[in-house]
Amino acid sequence: MRNVILDCDPGHDDAISIIIGASKRSGLNILGITTVAGNVEVEKNTRNALQVCELIGLDVPVVEGAVRPLVRESEIAPEIHGETGLDGPVLSTPAKKKTPGHAVDFIIEQVKKSEGKVTLVPTGPLTNIALALIKEPSIKDNIDEIVLMGGGTFGNWTPAAEFNIYVDAEAAKVVYESGVPVTMFGLDVTHQVIADEAIINRVAEIDNITAGFVKELLIFFAETYRNHFGFSGGPIHDACTTMYLIDPDMFHFEDVNVTIETKGEATYGMTVVDLLKTTGKPENVKFATGVDEDTFWNVFLDILDSYGETNAEA
Amino acid sequence: MRNVILDCDPGHDDAISIIIGASKRSGLNILGITTVAGNVEVEKNTRNALQVCELIGLDVPVVEGAVRPLVRESEIAPEIHGETGLDGPVLSTPAKKKTPGHAVDFIIEQVKKSEGKVTLVPTGPLTNIALALIKEPSIKDNIDEIVLMGGGTFGNWTPAAEFNIYVDAEAAKVVYESGVPVTMFGLDVTHQVIADEAIINRVAEIDNITAGFVKELLIFFAETYRNHFGFSGGPIHDACTTMYLIDPDMFHFEDVNVTIETKGEATYGMTVVDLLKTTGKPENVKFATGVDEDTFWNVFLDILDSYGETNAEA
Amino acid sequence: MRNVILDCDPGHDDAISIIIGASKRSGLNILGITTVAGNVEVEKNTRNALQVCELIGLDVPVVEGAVRPLVRESEIAPEIHGETGLDGPVLSTPAKKKTPGHAVDFIIEQVKKSEGKVTLVPTGPLTNIALALIKEPSIKDNIDEIVLMGGGTFGNWTPAAEFNIYVDAEAAKVVYESGVPVTMFGLDVTHQVIADEAIINRVAEIDNITAGFVKELLIFFAETYRNHFGFSGGPIHDACTTMYLIDPDMFHFEDVNVTIETKGEATYGMTVVDLLKTTGKPENVKFATGVDEDTFWNVFLDILDSYGETNAEA
Amino acid sequence: MRNVILDCDPGHDDAISIIIGASKRSGLNILGITTVAGNVEVEKNTRNALQVCELIGLDVPVVEGAVRPLVRESEIAPEIHGETGLDGPVLSTPAKKKTPGHAVDFIIEQVKKSEGKVTLVPTGPLTNIALALIKEPSIKDNIDEIVLMGGGTFGNWTPAAEFNIYVDAEAAKVVYESGVPVTMFGLDVTHQVIADEAIINRVAEIDNITAGFVKELLIFFAETYRNHFGFSGGPIHDACTTMYLIDPDMFHFEDVNVTIETKGEATYGMTVVDLLKTTGKPENVKFATGVDEDTFWNVFLDILDSYGETNAEA
Repeated sequence: MRNVILDCDPGHDDAISIIIGASKRSGLNILGITTVAGNVEVEKNTRNALQVCELIGLDVPVVEGAVRPLVRESEIAPEIHGETGLDGPVLSTPAKKKTPGHAVDFIIEQVKKSEGKVTLVPTGPLTNIALALIKEPSIKDNIDEIVLMGGGTFGNWTPAAEFNIYVDAEAAKVVYESGVPVTMFGLDVTHQVIADEAIINRVAEIDNITAGFVKELLIFFAETYRNHFGFSGGPIHDACTTMYLIDPDMFHFEDVNVTIETKGEATYGMTVVDLLKTTGKPENVKFATGVDEDTFWNVFLDILDSYGETNAEA
Repeated sequence: MRNVILDCDPGHDDAISIIIGASKRSGLNILGITTVAGNVEVEKNTRNALQVCELIGLDVPVVEGAVRPLVRESEIAPEIHGETGLDGPVLSTPAKKKTPGHAVDFIIEQVKKSEGKVTLVPTGPLTNIALALIKEPSIKDNIDEIVLMGGGTFGNWTPAAEFNIYVDAEAAKVVYESGVPVTMFGLDVTHQVIADEAIINRVAEIDNITAGFVKELLIFFAETYRNHFGFSGGPIHDACTTMYLIDPDMFHFEDVNVTIETKGEATYGMTVVDLLKTTGKPENVKFATGVDEDTFWNVFLDILDSYGETNAEA
Repeated sequence: MRNVILDCDPGHDDAISIIIGASKRSGLNILGITTVAGNVEVEKNTRNALQVCELIGLDVPVVEGAVRPLVRESEIAPEIHGETGLDGPVLSTPAKKKTPGHAVDFIIEQVKKSEGKVTLVPTGPLTNIALALIKEPSIKDNIDEIVLMGGGTFGNWTPAAEFNIYVDAEAAKVVYESGVPVTMFGLDVTHQVIADEAIINRVAEIDNITAGFVKELLIFFAETYRNHFGFSGGPIHDACTTMYLIDPDMFHFEDVNVTIETKGEATYGMTVVDLLKTTGKPENVKFATGVDEDTFWNVFLDILDSYGETNAEA
Repeated sequence: MRNVILDCDPGHDDAISIIIGASKRSGLNILGITTVAGNVEVEKNTRNALQVCELIGLDVPVVEGAVRPLVRESEIAPEIHGETGLDGPVLSTPAKKKTPGHAVDFIIEQVKKSEGKVTLVPTGPLTNIALALIKEPSIKDNIDEIVLMGGGTFGNWTPAAEFNIYVDAEAAKVVYESGVPVTMFGLDVTHQVIADEAIINRVAEIDNITAGFVKELLIFFAETYRNHFGFSGGPIHDACTTMYLIDPDMFHFEDVNVTIETKGEATYGMTVVDLLKTTGKPENVKFATGVDEDTFWNVFLDILDSYGETNAEA
């Protein structure tokens, strides 16, 4: 079993990523979920994480983390995820409570005490991960991989920067320069997994509570992306990370150098991906360039389908 | 007849661009050719421009321009274009002499005295154009369009920056912010017109001196791009500008804002193209997104073929 | 009694600052000493802090903190402070042990649980303070003042930047923008308190162990500053902070805006002090512009002298 | 006789600098005056230069130059120099006309054709000088020194930047990196030559038209500096350049490296002066650190006094 910590700011696609990762099929040992300011304020992201856990019966610690980026002022994206950060489904107040303490310390402790190496799976700004690496650099030795959603060769928050990286580019710089292997799902690949009407219809055919929840998320997300970007549906960006942990072979990768731009005026927060190998800098990232879309959606729908049994059992 | 000044640093693709632009079919009134430091030193670029003119019997002034960028130190690319800047064909010393004076003054004078508006066609670093706009801003009123090769949503000299813009990003900033309409052929489109073996074979079938010369250029260029970038041939970047002036309809465009990054560490010289309209900044560029490749090559070969008659007449 | 935490990287002048602050006359309630990577590696700084505590019988927790800056790579200054960070006196291994835990958590806990407000007194890079403010922003409400040594209108590590700020300019940005009142002793004032031969002779006349230790520090530091900067002695920079806490009236101040430069090439880490009020930005810093030198040294020597009694009592 | 070109944006202190430089006592061979956008728009600066020439009977070409900086947008300072750029004295329309052509070309031609080397004396933004060096780098060989007013270890337009350098920092970068020896009068020294009430009274005692004109300039300038900066009078910044050409020995200098900051957010346009030699970069500037004030004002008043004879003769 692979030990993972899901560090997130749910967020529609974060929520879906948790659902994928928590499925029996995933074979993941989720040590906990940590939250970070991102799509909306961290308190809302924590509440949303608790809600998802409750919905799917996932019994792991949910620990709240950074309320703000390392150096910059906070920036949130309610226009994409709604006021709650998870607009769409009807949300009740979760009975599950967050675990006391700070996400940064939870990450450090879990990594230090884990017998096997730990995989960190950040799908929001990289503030918690960077803070853990700054506060306790020695944890690097027991992290086998950071599997993240962020960046790309183009942006969605500015022309050059994707939201997660833009919000805390200094944190991203710390993570990408840490020496820990980074597997990166940027917009290049996440814009290939768009949940359009056809996909939503297939989700709608699955008859269990989790799939119903995911359907509501996808409907809201599709609407947002149609209005803001003219897309045919919402890209379920973050879910690429857990889908990869389940079936890495459906993705295509290239080993490249990625440098985080923190000085540029129009390019702050860009992940500069050296695909043409012009810099001569060492490769520090396994960069996802594509995905077998059919496989992706088939696996995705199978997993949602499996929640019928799971929920019954729980 | 459209009045144009070809501002260039030949360069294989610059040379081809001149040949296209000077063809009878182009219908262009070439007021002159100006040279700039870029692919190689300006003196070499001037000699190469003279040589091309002599070869095709183009009787227009060739005026030498900037020996260095506005603010940065010079940078050249002999590894792409060879020591002469036009390696490949056997080059003799041209009898044609450059016209005295500085390209910047030539541009200013020609634009000021022209009855109809003038189109500037820069295919090298934008130093001359920027200097003309700085020295005599009033010329803006008599320039209808700047049709340039440069930039793109990705780079070839760094991961973020294309060579022409990188070499003098400050000049690019001046040009893009000038208010003059810019039509931009960046790597997004120029990497679609790669002269691979099949194209070179079709050029080789044309029996005139000009086509023979172009064939030699393409062979060298293909070799360079194969070795440096693993491409199947050389993209004839600069020729997109004159091809567009002949037949604009073969290209696809989007009106966008483009901002030049001059502060970034890893992104200096990037043309930040706002395709997703995230910035709200005004559109200042007609950005070429694609080309009908079949049409492109058919027109291209027709033009080379027409040099049989032309040369005969000259 | 004023509650203070001394956050430092001793360091000759840090050590002297602790000695001043720990004197009976100071009237300070020292909650603890926290250490940070700076003049030398954090482990050495911790050992040096322990040694100073042991020497003067100061029984407070010494807690180790950040081993590296927030975003940048580490940079140290053994050429100024010697290999140990405290070269000069003969140093034995201290029996006193550091308190377990991380300085960042110690600061957060102490500030949260203190009944009266706490004054933070950083005399090294601002990494610990910034991390505490990032991890737990609510502590701002119980910090009355950050009294720091750093920056100035000119630099000593680069022409524009002083060492403490340069080493972690991003941390400095967080602290200066936090809204907590900052009282700043930069090079403008610290270069006015140079322990030259005359001062060292006066210290040498005081007959107690602490004064003897300080004398050795001053001799080494004077030598360093003579060789590196051509000064007549070592400026005891950090001691300005504790001297101010004892007798604020000997210093002159101006309320100004100070902005931390984190983007500049030649100015990275500069504290941009708006003395002429050209920016219109709000005042966030009480900036020390000068000191009554006679008063300074008289108080300083009195304090060293008082260690005769203190040590006897202890 | 030393050949000089006065490149300026008059401007009260520019006007005074011209008056000093044009005096018989100066022993300067003024090849011409070139103007640049700076304190106010270039057209106004040209008119003011013509007016000063007419007033003092200086028969040299006045050639208009750059209307805008190299890369940045224009910025002017009417709040310091008034709407005309030379508020204070009653100004009539000058009969003298500007010489056709562009300042950049005038500078290039004069330097190229001069038998002896030429000294450039810029007292405004460095746009013209930079453009000349970019357009015709070979002129470097016949320039013996660039004697300029600009910069300093602190600023007056921002906390870090002086107006002349700030307005066109890219031009300053070109000039300072050109390899031509630069003698620099920054705010460190120009704030030592403040024309306060006592000085103005001494000027008022001199009975000739030129001194009367200077008196009016100084009264307006003193008022401006009192209101904006709380100074006791106006620093006659630019006049340091011509005073130096007359009597270099009254100034104190240090040979230092000066780097122009063009990337900083709060430090754009700073002249980073390496007085403590921390960078190890080569010395490229003779930096004025001080002046013998008594000598300065005595020479200054003598020169104004000499205009009694001069005007009579003319």
